[in-house]
Amino acid sequence: MEVRVKILYTSLCHTDVYFWEAKGQTPVFPRIFGHEAGGIIESVGEGVTDVAPGDHVLPVFTGECKECPHCKSAESNMCDLLRINTDRGVMIGDGKSRFSINGKPIYHFVGTSTFSEYTVMHIGCVAKINPEAPLDKVCVLSCGISTGLGATINVAKPPKGSTVAIFGLGAVGLAAAEGARIAGASRIIGVDLNPSRFEEAKKFGCTEFVNPKDHSKPVQQVLADMTNGGVDRSVECTGNINAMIQAFECVHDGWGVAVLVGVPHKDAEFKTHPMNFLNERTLKGTFFGNYKPRTDLPNVVELYMKKELEVEKFITHSVPFSEINKAFDLMAKGEGIRCIIRMQN
Amino acid sequence: MEVRVKILYTSLCHTDVYFWEAKGQTPVFPRIFGHEAGGIIESVGEGVTDVAPGDHVLPVFTGECKECPHCKSAESNMCDLLRINTDRGVMIGDGKSRFSINGKPIYHFVGTSTFSEYTVMHIGCVAKINPEAPLDKVCVLSCGISTGLGATINVAKPPKGSTVAIFGLGAVGLAAAEGARIAGASRIIGVDLNPSRFEEAKKFGCTEFVNPKDHSKPVQQVLADMTNGGVDRSVECTGNINAMIQAFECVHDGWGVAVLVGVPHKDAEFKTHPMNFLNERTLKGTFFGNYKPRTDLPNVVELYMKKELEVEKFITHSVPFSEINKAFDLMAKGEGIRCIIRMQN
Ligand SMILES: NC(=O)c1ccc[n+]([C@@H]2O[C@H](COP(=O)([O-])OP(=O)(O)OC[C@H]3O[C@@H](n4cnc5c(N)ncnc54)[C@H](O)[C@@H]3O)[C@@H](O)[C@H]2O)c1
Ligand SMILES: NC(=O)c1ccc[n+]([C@@H]2O[C@H](COP(=O)([O-])OP(=O)(O)OC[C@H]3O[C@@H](n4cnc5c(N)ncnc54)[C@H](O)[C@@H]3O)[C@@H](O)[C@H]2O)c1
Ligand SMILES: [Zn+2]
Ligand SMILES: [Zn+2]
Ligand SMILES: [Zn+2]
Ligand SMILES: [Zn+2]
Repeated sequence: MEVRVKILYTSLCHTDVYFWEAKGQTPVFPRIFGHEAGGIIESVGEGVTDVAPGDHVLPVFTGECKECPHCKSAESNMCDLLRINTDRGVMIGDGKSRFSINGKPIYHFVGTSTFSEYTVMHIGCVAKINPEAPLDKVCVLSCGISTGLGATINVAKPPKGSTVAIFGLGAVGLAAAEGARIAGASRIIGVDLNPSRFEEAKKFGCTEFVNPKDHSKPVQQVLADMTNGGVDRSVECTGNINAMIQAFECVHDGWGVAVLVGVPHKDAEFKTHPMNFLNERTLKGTFFGNYKPRTDLPNVVELYMKKELEVEKFITHSVPFSEINKAFDLMAKGEGIRCIIRMQN
Repeated sequence: MEVRVKILYTSLCHTDVYFWEAKGQTPVFPRIFGHEAGGIIESVGEGVTDVAPGDHVLPVFTGECKECPHCKSAESNMCDLLRINTDRGVMIGDGKSRFSINGKPIYHFVGTSTFSEYTVMHIGCVAKINPEAPLDKVCVLSCGISTGLGATINVAKPPKGSTVAIFGLGAVGLAAAEGARIAGASRIIGVDLNPSRFEEAKKFGCTEFVNPKDHSKPVQQVLADMTNGGVDRSVECTGNINAMIQAFECVHDGWGVAVLVGVPHKDAEFKTHPMNFLNERTLKGTFFGNYKPRTDLPNVVELYMKKELEVEKFITHSVPFSEINKAFDLMAKGEGIRCIIRMQN
């Protein structure tokens, strides 16, 4: 059930850096990082029937086995077999790595390891896409952009003309704003502690900005005052527990829906008065924007092909593989959104 | 915009007792309690066009003005004008009471005051129902029963064949179980600290029971073990903050939905790890089962008329108005579910 993929383009996501820094986790070493990418099937192993050499694919850090209760549920994308596992460095079939150097294994990362000219993946973690889609663009759809986009489109589902607050204007939050724009929201309020994010966010449909640091009132109250009682939808894309609580408490009673996307600290605690729920607010969380990788990702690529989703504006830099460290530097400095790493030149 | 209603049947709900005891609230005295009832329009005031003398109605403690953003939203029933206000003892039109004794006012309670042969209500708090519906039965649909029923049918929305946990098997929880039965749930697990509730709950569709006191493991874990990872839906009808947290944490990741109904202590705090949301669980709260009183309550009565909803089993006692204190005694002892108070004999 494995395929070998020739990676053409990959990009750097915070998750790579987080695990590369190996703070607070059990480090797996040596390991090949990378999980946002686009490539072409080079060869297929036993049991693989849905793809053939030459097919264009996006590797995905989480999978879809199509057999488990989650894959069979219309609502979940948290596959029991192939759900993200950041500790596993081997293939699930035989518990071994497909990379080695001088006979010693080099470990995999989230089943993708796309910082490599060729990688081996479980077929359940590979989305076959339209071969006409430019891989140097759509490669960014395999992680953060789809996560933010799906959080809004699939989970928050803002009605046309509604007001949406986006907490955190990194790549994921900007994609969530793009989702609100596509859904036809009339006001998209970007909330970030870093005012340098605001100028960029205008390109993604944000119509207004709130920096919690500019106000003495809690940001929930600031948003309620701006919107006659609260926003219709909010999407939290920070990973910060305070922002999670604020994103929930700022939605309108009666119909407001808040969606959590950010990955919290392991000791974080979500706290609120239960009356905030009883007043008919809804709180949900999402993983990978509720997209099922194999079933839904090809349709996200089609959204781009139909020019409904704009992908180019997420791509601010591009470097050859030999200069991958530049992508790390840009991310460390918080410059730009996505840096494409070209594997061939 | 007021109507005078001749009350024929009323019943006692915990909320009456809670405010009668006046613990922790500013007491309003003298006051006429009662809010679950059925009656007939005796006369209508200026501006009232939807009802006429002789119409059969259910008084409701919360209203529907049909003009405010909540009334206009398809999702909310929390009318800005007529939402429950337990401190107000007067009519909203002129700030005065319609009851008096020796020239001194007697105050209203939640706009209904149904422990009286005649009462005056705002038209927005009156649901006109099918005149063929027996008022001595459907009167119980004007508060707790509809709250529990709607929490399941309108908010939790269990798919056919799903597994539902009900926390708290008082009148509201039993109605929530009845809602799960009507929705076609295949397993309905009743959770209560009081084992004497379990026998009665069988009549309301409960198929299994869990008393948290019988287990050393947290009840979330007990339910997860019984259901291969968690229930599909849960409805909390206790008012206890621990049960609220348990009801949320016991739903299955990927698709589980928990609904809070119980009215919490004012200092209660809902606490959970945010990963419980990110793993694709949903938490909502509801007020009066999300029913809009005037628009939806007549349809709940029709559910009974079509014999889909069984109301008789909620009615365990009946007394004449002169013996209303017996209804208080029964509730104090926790005996039965609803005691009908007959105003005429
Ligand atoms: N659920 C998923 O499937 C999934 C997938 C990918 C990423 N993520 C998570 O999404 C989050 C965002 O990812 P990103 O790559 O866009 O990160 P990022 O660091 O680029 O952006 C986060 C932004 O949030 C802002 N911020 C931080 N704390 C804030 C606060 N209290 N109030 C307002 N703004 C605040 C920061 O200034 C920054 O601009 C991360 O937690 C990431 O782990 C989740
Ligand atoms: N949201 C609304 O619109 C609305 C309307 C009416 C009533 N309510 C609320 O619904 C709740 C239930 O009302 P009721 O009349 O059925 O009350 P009730 O007292 O008859 O029943 C509550 C049941 O919960 C059980 N219980 C208490 N703590 C528990 C725990 N930790 N775990 C498991 N079971 C527990 C009790 O043993 C009891 O059987 C109350 O909080 C009431 O205020 C809400
Ligand atoms: Zn699966
Ligand atoms: Zn990523
Ligand atoms: Zn209204
Ligand atoms: Zn009541």
